[in-house]
Amino acid sequence: MPGEVNRDPVCLFCRIVDGEIPSITVHEDDSTLAFMDISPATDGHLLVIPKKHAKDLGEIGADDLAAVTSVAQKLARVQLDKLGATGVNLINNWGESAWQSVFHFHLHVIPRYADDPAKDSLKLPWNPTPGDQDRIAAAAAALTD
Amino acid sequence: MPGEVNRDPVCLFCRIVDGEIPSITVHEDDSTLAFMDISPATDGHLLVIPKKHAKDLGEIGADDLAAVTSVAQKLARVQLDKLGATGVNLINNWGESAWQSVFHFHLHVIPRYADDPAKDSLKLPWNPTPGDQDRIAAAAAALTD
Repeated sequence: MPGEVNRDPVCLFCRIVDGEIPSITVHEDDSTLAFMDISPATDGHLLVIPKKHAKDLGEIGADDLAAVTSVAQKLARVQLDKLGATGVNLINNWGESAWQSVFHFHLHVIPRYADDPAKDSLKLPWNPTPGDQDRIAAAAAALTD
Repeated sequence: MPGEVNRDPVCLFCRIVDGEIPSITVHEDDSTLAFMDISPATDGHLLVIPKKHAKDLGEIGADDLAAVTSVAQKLARVQLDKLGATGVNLINNWGESAWQSVFHFHLHVIPRYADDPAKDSLKLPWNPTPGDQDRIAAAAAALTD
């Protein structure tokens, strides 16, 4: 219910949760909301958010993160079943330098269409090529220090 | 323990779980393994997988999905703390048309470096621009049909 969860009154997505700003909702339960992205990467691109305000992956609680991810998995299946998608990407952006633009945690659920380049011309943001072994090992050492 | 979870003997990541193929491990617990991507998008790029074989987001069980996501959140924090990253992307690719190339579920955890373009020149795979309202509404209708 609106008002029963923590909210930030100036947050765009909290205002969507509260119904102050319209959205096209495709799923709602006690802790999550899913709605269509208004600047879709592909047909059917949607977002899943926790109703409780958390600005990013650093702030979202364990239960909300699990709930959001589970809803995303279910909706990804629906994108395959109902939209004719042939694949799905889940993407979360933590921080402005990772392309985050709305500071309320959201998981992008982006259907892909291998057979329809007109609907889907996305390119992987990196070119997978073997990395430098020493740099990889150095990063791992720092992460496990 | 190797052998105690479902495995696919020809799966690259099952063989990493079993230690048959080497990897640089940065986290391990009963149900998950995290290791460095050998073709990193940025310095510190790692993967989190369930030990139990599941080929993709469609197959992974709820408990394993929650566990993998929770480990990814923890390691994303470590990337900020220990690598000097300024942001992190979580990406899952379901299906070949969504860039999946190894068919054992894996969540990419990719640190971002706003202050170091030499380390990080990734581009968002789409250009966020307002979409066609009718197409968005039609997709939503199909998803909630």
